[in-house]
Amino acid sequence: MNVISDKTIGRLSQYRRLLLQLKQQNVRHLFSHQLGEATGLTAAQVRRDLMVIGFTGSPSKGYHVEELYAKISNFLDGHDRQLGAIVGIGNLGLAIMGYFSGRRTSVDIVVAFDVDPTKVGRVIVGRRCYHLDEMETVCKQMNISVGIITTPADVAQGVAEKMARGNLKGILNFAPSILKMPKDIYIQNMDVSMVLETVAFFASRKK
Amino acid sequence: MNVISDKTIGRLSQYRRLLLQLKQQNVRHLFSHQLGEATGLTAAQVRRDLMVIGFTGSPSKGYHVEELYAKISNFLDGHDRQLGAIVGIGNLGLAIMGYFSGRRTSVDIVVAFDVDPTKVGRVIVGRRCYHLDEMETVCKQMNISVGIITTPADVAQGVAEKMARGNLKGILNFAPSILKMPKDIYIQNMDVSMVLETVAFFASRKK
Repeated sequence: MNVISDKTIGRLSQYRRLLLQLKQQNVRHLFSHQLGEATGLTAAQVRRDLMVIGFTGSPSKGYHVEELYAKISNFLDGHDRQLGAIVGIGNLGLAIMGYFSGRRTSVDIVVAFDVDPTKVGRVIVGRRCYHLDEMETVCKQMNISVGIITTPADVAQGVAEKMARGNLKGILNFAPSILKMPKDIYIQNMDVSMVLETVAFFASRKK
Repeated sequence: MNVISDKTIGRLSQYRRLLLQLKQQNVRHLFSHQLGEATGLTAAQVRRDLMVIGFTGSPSKGYHVEELYAKISNFLDGHDRQLGAIVGIGNLGLAIMGYFSGRRTSVDIVVAFDVDPTKVGRVIVGRRCYHLDEMETVCKQMNISVGIITTPADVAQGVAEKMARGNLKGILNFAPSILKMPKDIYIQNMDVSMVLETVAFFASRKK
């Protein structure tokens, strides 16, 4: 398989969501510029992305919605479902667990970790919560591959290092902290403050 | 002022966070490649971004940490603090409100909206919750410019349209839904499912 960037994967995931909506509305075909318009991308970008997964449309009719949906799904989900662990059971951790409960996604969050004695040992939003010190052992036993960090910034690096020792391969980091990790672990940051600052900056200039 | 992209603003915000850490550790100077390394960017990208705000380092010593921090802050915060409204007071909405309570950011979330009669009329995490139908009026009265959407996907577009009628200028959208809005409103999407899918994809290939 060719090298593929995380941005491409993100866009494919976006196309798939849109295609699902279209399928439900019984739309049968659409052109790259329409897919681009709906997702805020250029037609050229859409075509490049779909070429990566070996899909081309017909010049006269565009892409076949159902076939394209199947092709993208096959590509994105062409791996076993991954097991996930979440660390930091505050409001954000609870929100994330609630959000993904019962949802069909490619990660199943099956276990939680915290250091708070009122949480450790309990079952929270359907997941058993262990002490952070048990993470390495529990993650190895359960074959967890994806970690979600929803801790305060100052402990995030330590948590990520424990995740690495537990053999996790991908980390979604919500803590506003820049993680230093070996290259063989994939890290995606979601820094809510940073994004809100960006929105505020543009909002202030549009008034 | 030149046209500046949202990605540049995001990166400046990241540099600032790192510089704050360095300041606290009494680091006085650093080079663009060091700033790049710590943020996962190339030295060339760092230099381009800092040129946008008119900052250059010394070839022998690099950037002066304290001066660069002040310059970026001045640029990013060189606007009035914006007032924000949040719509959808589920777990994610509560998490966001809790996260930003008492934090010094460029947006002050001062009001909440929902349609649930058990929430409307109450004060939740320090903000009064109004019915969604009152949004246009309340936002105009309070001069709200930034909206945060934490609703289910199927109502997000309707909420965004109400925000536009309430004169909001920037929207941070957490709902997994692609919003169609006029160009004069700045939209930033944070699609947690999509990002988690990306992490799972890469984790599955690194095992």
